[in-house]
Amino acid sequence: MKTEVTLGIDVGGTNTAFGFVDINGKCITDSSIPTKANSSAADLFARLNPEIDNLYKTISDNAILKGVGIGAPNANYYHGTVENPPNLRWGTVNIIEIIRQYYDVPAAITNDANASAIGEMLFGAAKGIKHFIVITLGTGLGSGVVVDGKLVYGSDGFAGEIGHTVFDPNGRLCGCGKKGCLETYASATGIRRTVMELLANSNQYSSLRSISFNDLDSKMIFEAAKAGDKIALEAFNFTGRVLGQKLADAIAVTSPEVIILFGGLALAGDLIIKPTKISMEENLFHVFRNKVKILQSGLPEGNSAVLGASALIWNEIIKAK
Amino acid sequence: MKTEVTLGIDVGGTNTAFGFVDINGKCITDSSIPTKANSSAADLFARLNPEIDNLYKTISDNAILKGVGIGAPNANYYHGTVENPPNLRWGTVNIIEIIRQYYDVPAAITNDANASAIGEMLFGAAKGIKHFIVITLGTGLGSGVVVDGKLVYGSDGFAGEIGHTVFDPNGRLCGCGKKGCLETYASATGIRRTVMELLANSNQYSSLRSISFNDLDSKMIFEAAKAGDKIALEAFNFTGRVLGQKLADAIAVTSPEVIILFGGLALAGDLIIKPTKISMEENLFHVFRNKVKILQSGLPEGNSAVLGASALIWNEIIKAK
Repeated sequence: MKTEVTLGIDVGGTNTAFGFVDINGKCITDSSIPTKANSSAADLFARLNPEIDNLYKTISDNAILKGVGIGAPNANYYHGTVENPPNLRWGTVNIIEIIRQYYDVPAAITNDANASAIGEMLFGAAKGIKHFIVITLGTGLGSGVVVDGKLVYGSDGFAGEIGHTVFDPNGRLCGCGKKGCLETYASATGIRRTVMELLANSNQYSSLRSISFNDLDSKMIFEAAKAGDKIALEAFNFTGRVLGQKLADAIAVTSPEVIILFGGLALAGDLIIKPTKISMEENLFHVFRNKVKILQSGLPEGNSAVLGASALIWNEIIKAK
Repeated sequence: MKTEVTLGIDVGGTNTAFGFVDINGKCITDSSIPTKANSSAADLFARLNPEIDNLYKTISDNAILKGVGIGAPNANYYHGTVENPPNLRWGTVNIIEIIRQYYDVPAAITNDANASAIGEMLFGAAKGIKHFIVITLGTGLGSGVVVDGKLVYGSDGFAGEIGHTVFDPNGRLCGCGKKGCLETYASATGIRRTVMELLANSNQYSSLRSISFNDLDSKMIFEAAKAGDKIALEAFNFTGRVLGQKLADAIAVTSPEVIILFGGLALAGDLIIKPTKISMEENLFHVFRNKVKILQSGLPEGNSAVLGASALIWNEIIKAK
């Protein structure tokens, strides 16, 4: 008997990854191609199709395709569209219509943070958990909110933008045009800004003083913190304090059992989780205290985005049964 | 044929109101008794029962009781309990067990803000709306969050505490022990504190300068604002600015179509809605802008709490059909 698989496609600003995943979250095979930010969505899928076909041929003796799930920036689950993604020159385009030209199976699209949340629910740290929030700490801060076992899309399909809740109305300029959004503090870019601010405000020795803003990345800050660099450690503390305060706000809305941290910055483990947890507890309304766990992602690092995209459509298939 | 009715009971700190409501949200008859904050929950329901019986006798020739819905402070829908309500000396008590001693019909309990949200959904301003948030502006600030036509109770039954999200971590001391909670600004008590702060910080003439903190209430501030009092007007502006900012945060989580303002302060209409709307739009992530309406409650002022409690159980009965 053939194994049922779904195709997960994760459209990133630089690369588009894809792979075939079974119902247990095992990624059987995967690959990627450059996204080419300046070309159209139709062009991307025209280039993807033969690559996916070739990959499918390697498994099609033993596998049968049941659906296609896509994670993409500014994706709208309700409309099947991607709407003015910040890093791609796509404008607004219906991706599900494009997908239907190539595949005669159910397809669904959502943004990467929502796909991650469904990935955690089906295959990762949120298995069996009905109420949780996934926070993706990448270049920005994405979030996926699950209530009663269902991802919250909201009235317009764009629910779960905790990265753009306001930490400080007079704070850092955000890429979205607002000031002081959470993601200007709690993200790979945010912690870099925090290091620069700390270097400016203190005379503390730091190995990070020799690195330019452009060259600095969150991995360097992580390495410095592990080596005991006080500026790097304080940057993680501050990042956690900000994140914890805004998580407390989000918890007051949907009362999740678990918060899952996903993405590059989350790999710092306790360096980010400990200060986040302390600040979250301090800022929580008392009825929520000592109830909400903060966990790291339960998805394997290498192909978590493909697993998330695949989980999106597996979830639809399971619901339809 | 007899009209099916449910019994709605709203337990307040001072009075407990009750009434019989049909499936169209018509309150056929209602009454109230003193809650007596120092006596037990069992005592309250022992006193309520004969009163309710007497009221039911006036309609029982033409009506048949189908369920009991209760709105009460710190009520937990999942457990049927009230847990350490701030204004009643009840500790934690299972109200549904008490109710079952008197009535052999389905019963459910939740807090007053959640009951209001279901009331708006069935009988009020949220009819046919799947995603909305009700904000109750009373002594404190309560909220009920509806996602996809269902009230969000969260993992522990206490979801929807937007009043205790943080506006200013160094701000006003809240009754909950935290600092700067939204409800210390946006509530009947909050606007009173704002007036006192504005009087302290300016030399502006105001009719409110002759009123003590204890004597001042939000109705007086409303009357002064209507008469053009600059301090009162600025108090409404500031209250709306704070509320709008925190509504924008909540909208980023669940993306509602509508925000409904309910309770005393909401009766000020545009005086509170206009600055709230302006601030909300300024603080919204761009994808949510110019989409979210702010409406006043659609429930009749006099017995809205009884209608909400009744709607809670009507909603259960409708779901079970």
